[in-house]
Amino acid sequence: MVRELMGKLGDKWSVLLVVMLAKAPGQRARFSELQRMLTGISQRVLTTTLRDAERDGFVAREVFAEVPPRVEYELTELGRSLLGPMEHLARWIGEHWPTIAAARERFDRRG
Amino acid sequence: MVRELMGKLGDKWSVLLVVMLAKAPGQRARFSELQRMLTGISQRVLTTTLRDAERDGFVAREVFAEVPPRVEYELTELGRSLLGPMEHLARWIGEHWPTIAAARERFDRRG
Repeated sequence: MVRELMGKLGDKWSVLLVVMLAKAPGQRARFSELQRMLTGISQRVLTTTLRDAERDGFVAREVFAEVPPRVEYELTELGRSLLGPMEHLARWIGEHWPTIAAARERFDRRG
Repeated sequence: MVRELMGKLGDKWSVLLVVMLAKAPGQRARFSELQRMLTGISQRVLTTTLRDAERDGFVAREVFAEVPPRVEYELTELGRSLLGPMEHLARWIGEHWPTIAAARERFDRRG
């Protein structure tokens, strides 16, 4: 259980989806807006990432009965609660990235 | 940078390698011991995971000039410092897993 979720929570697009939605006005956005925010994500990957996030309860999908129908994705309370550990990890990376980059350089030089 | 590392730090075997090494006596272990601790990991995946962890500076590899040579892997200070954010994430998962499981059930029932 922890293993499976650790893997998922490390999936960069899942992480970025939650982080970007948290920054969006009203913590909600449409598919097209998410595609712009998550530079480099393909339509297929965004569809899967959104589906998984909805299934896990991090995101709620809302359909507005308009013509054509409007669909918005909103960060749920569960999704918001995930920001804490994610920001902790992101802060750790920010602080330790130089050490990691230096370790990689030494390792690659050793060949 | 953050994205790439988030992905890596979510890789379940990388996470478990650091967590298991932290629990090992002297925070060091041989390949065969790691294989036993990380149930289900293949030799190939453990080799890659160890190599990546060494390259990133989380693990140090020590060769003892014996016959046959003995190799041990040790958690570095950088590796130890990663335990904080990882435990934070694992705690979050432990607390929220029931909510996630329930969300998945509802989602799967909707089909």
